[in-house]
Amino acid sequence: MAGYPLPIKRLISELGKLPGIGEKTATRLAMHVLRAPEGDARGLAESIMDVRDKIRFCQVCHNFAETELCNVCRDPARDTGLICVVEDPDALMAIEESGSYSGTYHVLHGVLSPLDGVGPEQLKLYELVERIREKAVREVILATNPNVSGESTALLIARMIGKLDVPVTRIAQGVPMGSDLRYMDRMTLSKSLQFRRDMEKEP
Amino acid sequence: MAGYPLPIKRLISELGKLPGIGEKTATRLAMHVLRAPEGDARGLAESIMDVRDKIRFCQVCHNFAETELCNVCRDPARDTGLICVVEDPDALMAIEESGSYSGTYHVLHGVLSPLDGVGPEQLKLYELVERIREKAVREVILATNPNVSGESTALLIARMIGKLDVPVTRIAQGVPMGSDLRYMDRMTLSKSLQFRRDMEKEP
Repeated sequence: MAGYPLPIKRLISELGKLPGIGEKTATRLAMHVLRAPEGDARGLAESIMDVRDKIRFCQVCHNFAETELCNVCRDPARDTGLICVVEDPDALMAIEESGSYSGTYHVLHGVLSPLDGVGPEQLKLYELVERIREKAVREVILATNPNVSGESTALLIARMIGKLDVPVTRIAQGVPMGSDLRYMDRMTLSKSLQFRRDMEKEP
Repeated sequence: MAGYPLPIKRLISELGKLPGIGEKTATRLAMHVLRAPEGDARGLAESIMDVRDKIRFCQVCHNFAETELCNVCRDPARDTGLICVVEDPDALMAIEESGSYSGTYHVLHGVLSPLDGVGPEQLKLYELVERIREKAVREVILATNPNVSGESTALLIARMIGKLDVPVTRIAQGVPMGSDLRYMDRMTLSKSLQFRRDMEKEP
């Protein structure tokens, strides 16, 4: 049985290592790479190498950065008294895109996950404690995801920082905007009731 | 608003050019490329360039090849008296993987699609006619897909080859093995009735 030539097989296997890309999709992508204009294929290959060569982590918040500091930490307009703790740069970008936050961040690069061998040492936790100790921080906002690992990580951080006399808050959990209560899961509804607010406090 | 650093943005945009990869998936893949072991990222980039450098088309059947001839045409065990006409190398591979064909192929690299500006000139049709003229061919099997473009391409080829006095056949259309008639579409059922066979002819 004659298979694809070796370079195609290798490309399919390399593409198949990407998350969520099975062999069928990898084959389809490989066919595209073979047929795409030369510049597109070269552009993709170069941008992969480029991103690895040029991207490092911010010395302060561990976000992706091209220089010693990331775009957020380099911005003098950001409020350094506020630190929003996120799991990864994707969460940071999501908050940035909401356009509703002008403080700084701290990227943990993961959450506690004992089954995957991720303990406190694998996260940028001690760096966070150091940062709070060294600089004047008014508030630490815990914005890990509202799931088991995110919650337990938030709990651990709250405990670690508790001794430092800095207010620690957690992002609100409840029904998302535009949702329909009929289709909402029980946990979310339960949280939305538990954390209900007085209407007078509305800004 | 601080976005991703430029090299990440570029990688997301390059990945987003791949078929079926939207911006969200491209971002997820870019994050993976950033975090994957150095060897994986380099391997992917290299295999993309490699496939473009090393893969060409078979001089005979226009399948992917590393040398002048593809793996099938180079194989002396293949029956060169049979030519199976397929739309693209993927279809060729699917037939190869079925393990039920020992003839050679002819890859059209597309099907008639006037709306996309694909006419007979864009396909390897004249090459097919030349091939049949020059070599002793016993049968041409049309294995384009059983849809509108595939059918019209098969019809055109049948007409072009009709003058050459070579038997032209079409792959069977009917209910696929393991399927359930209840869930089969009307066109397929209609074809399966239209092309019914005598039970005696069963091998």
